Amino acid sequence: MEAVKTNIDEFIDAVEKKDKSRMDKLYEHLEAIDIAVSFSNTSEKIVKNFCKIANDEKIADILEQADEKVQKKIIAELDNYRILYIFNYMQKDDIVDILSCLPIDRSKQIVNLMREGDKKVIQELLGYSQDSAGGIMTTEYIALNGNMTIKAAMVKIKNIAPKTEVIESIFVIDSKRELIGIADLRDILISNDDVILKDIADKEYISVEPETDQEEVSMLVSKYDLKVIPVLDKRKALIGIITVDDIIDVIEEEHTEDMYGLAGVSKEENLDSSISESIKLRLPWLIINLFTAFLAAAIIKIFESTIEQVVALSATMSIVTGMGGNAGTQTLSIMVRSIAIGDINGKQKIKLIMKEVGLGLINGSITGLITGIIVYFMYGNVYLGVIIFLAMIANLIISGFFGIIIPLVLMKCKADPALASSIFLTTATDVLGFFVFLGLAHLMLPYLL
Amino acid sequence: MEAVKTNIDEFIDAVEKKDKSRMDKLYEHLEAIDIAVSFSNTSEKIVKNFCKIANDEKIADILEQADEKVQKKIIAELDNYRILYIFNYMQKDDIVDILSCLPIDRSKQIVNLMREGDKKVIQELLGYSQDSAGGIMTTEYIALNGNMTIKAAMVKIKNIAPKTEVIESIFVIDSKRELIGIADLRDILISNDDVILKDIADKEYISVEPETDQEEVSMLVSKYDLKVIPVLDKRKALIGIITVDDIIDVIEEEHTEDMYGLAGVSKEENLDSSISESIKLRLPWLIINLFTAFLAAAIIKIFESTIEQVVALSATMSIVTGMGGNAGTQTLSIMVRSIAIGDINGKQKIKLIMKEVGLGLINGSITGLITGIIVYFMYGNVYLGVIIFLAMIANLIISGFFGIIIPLVLMKCKADPALASSIFLTTATDVLGFFVFLGLAHLMLPYLL
Repeated sequence: MEAVKTNIDEFIDAVEKKDKSRMDKLYEHLEAIDIAVSFSNTSEKIVKNFCKIANDEKIADILEQADEKVQKKIIAELDNYRILYIFNYMQKDDIVDILSCLPIDRSKQIVNLMREGDKKVIQELLGYSQDSAGGIMTTEYIALNGNMTIKAAMVKIKNIAPKTEVIESIFVIDSKRELIGIADLRDILISNDDVILKDIADKEYISVEPETDQEEVSMLVSKYDLKVIPVLDKRKALIGIITVDDIIDVIEEEHTEDMYGLAGVSKEENLDSSISESIKLRLPWLIINLFTAFLAAAIIKIFESTIEQVVALSATMSIVTGMGGNAGTQTLSIMVRSIAIGDINGKQKIKLIMKEVGLGLINGSITGLITGIIVYFMYGNVYLGVIIFLAMIANLIISGFFGIIIPLVLMKCKADPALASSIFLTTATDVLGFFVFLGLAHLMLPYLL
Repeated sequence: MEAVKTNIDEFIDAVEKKDKSRMDKLYEHLEAIDIAVSFSNTSEKIVKNFCKIANDEKIADILEQADEKVQKKIIAELDNYRILYIFNYMQKDDIVDILSCLPIDRSKQIVNLMREGDKKVIQELLGYSQDSAGGIMTTEYIALNGNMTIKAAMVKIKNIAPKTEVIESIFVIDSKRELIGIADLRDILISNDDVILKDIADKEYISVEPETDQEEVSMLVSKYDLKVIPVLDKRKALIGIITVDDIIDVIEEEHTEDMYGLAGVSKEENLDSSISESIKLRLPWLIINLFTAFLAAAIIKIFESTIEQVVALSATMSIVTGMGGNAGTQTLSIMVRSIAIGDINGKQKIKLIMKEVGLGLINGSITGLITGIIVYFMYGNVYLGVIIFLAMIANLIISGFFGIIIPLVLMKCKADPALASSIFLTTATDVLGFFVFLGLAHLMLPYLL
């Protein structure tokens, strides 16, 4: 890794000095992704120089690997015709990615300059949402007619292979482009020359539609260990494929979204976000939380006269709500993750709720007992210990119940459970936790004084 | 998906009735993974019958797809010799997976019955930790001598291909098994018969050692969009490969671990865990949290006389700590995720801390101002509003600072930042949050009365 670092620094230096031959030489030993990453931290001048001295293929490599910001930087340095030349070296799905980040005027201009065939493909791809199978699919695959012989197929494969993303799977179609099956290149290699392609194609394949959500595609790929999945339109005609390496990006993206969602962070944010971006992304969530906190404070305020008489309540009440929050977050994480990996369908929801309520009862009893005993020794009042014991059980049951119910309800409402669950959970465990604890204390006030 | 369900039910019915021919017919239209999943919910008898009537290849398919529980159920029904026959249909890495779940006696018995060549490979693989490159690699690949001609290579490839996991990449080695480079099957297909293999091999490849952690492997695969990564020993000799579909499992597993870690849940747990398993896995975390909660309660107890005089503090203090926890969790999630995807190396840590402190100052000022004004109207005391305004700023700065520092320190100590960060963060924001707020109130007590 150290070696890479040194080479990158030298590379940037060569670009800065517009030393094309040295740059070309260093480029051979570097990975495009490393250069793309380094461009996110260098000055505009470096990118400008690079676009001037690098050939189209190199720029295409970098564009494919770069994040949106760097892509925009590079595109800003290029005129429309140069971009078209560069696109010759790129996969259709990556071209679509870049076009969809550009201002709509510019992307239209570029698409209009394309050859008719390309234009059609790109416009079709652009029509699909970025998070759908259509948005992530590519059109670089080998599709051959099922009536072809193995011999003819091999000739075609040798011709087309260099331009495709996948070679291990050959898509076998009929004259209407309907997918008959998928042939494994291994089987083609070992079959006799006169065998007909459709006879060795595997007809039991899994496919998706262009509208399928990318998360569902990634679940299928991961569940069935697929290397590639075909995208078929309503007439079962093959319109694209999705490869496993694109799926990895989807999985990473969806996971970031889930994890950030639970913490109230937008997936747009990362360590490089500017301070003003971060404020814009995080502050709304904090303000929503603030009103939740006020809700809890309002409950406490109701019992202020009780607290005034038994000040020990103020130090101990936050233990009950804190533990409720912790236990609820445990349940919530398991639920949200199970939903994300598609593990929730068909499970008996009532059974899940019963289990979490049971867990709350048992974990609440154990932690409640420990807390009750310590509180008793701290304040020398056995009733305070009993109250906190009971409140802990109640709040851990509440947290288990809501930890299951909230994601289920959000899923039912077609909302993302990862995104909004935690705020509802905290509200429930805080508001109800304070209410139960202070309510019990209020009822048993004579014994506490 | 409905169709699959019906077929599975019919399939289970056929197995139950030991109707072999109907079972075999239905099997053709099902995916092994779906059958494996259904076995986790069926009675022992179904698995027993299946092992009796299914042939070795089918059992191998199901074993490869099943989770640990189902694997154990199946293995329990088979004697050692039958298992060996079944292993003939399985990839080495999957065999190792199954062996490592068995009691050590039984796995030793089975390994000892193997042919010498297999025994050596399996024992080597078993020697590597399950979470390392060695533990997830497979030995089913095509490695050819670099001096071979394309013509000779194609003959070899046709012979070996059916037994390998990967065919698109051919590993080119020298006589000492040292990896010279990786040849793309496309290039082999289009090259002339007399070209020498090593001349078309790509010598700039990325590799890992068997000890490399699986998380690092998955980062490399995802960053460089690799379909396969070679595993080399210290002498640079090729000892295995890792394919992208195994990496997806690693990524899913690591995601679950990270997400659960932040919430204090073990990755061993899922919706199917029994209640006693769940208690065993979750209770320790709750008890650790309980002591954190007592730490916070102890701080409040110090200021009990202050609270007794100004009871409004008890309702408002939890707003400050709650908001600190929320803001800190935002920072923490971004840090933990950035560390997980390898985005943290070489970033300027000081700059990150300054940014989060700045964010805390700004977000704290805004939420503090809102809170201060509301509290002023609730209690009619401007000083209480000022105190909560100042405490909010302080606690959001604290939370930003610790949200960055805690994962960094844990990473430095080689601990998993996902696992322990949140407990330290809550401790910091709760203890310091209460201390700052109640401390300020204590200092300004005359103005509050």
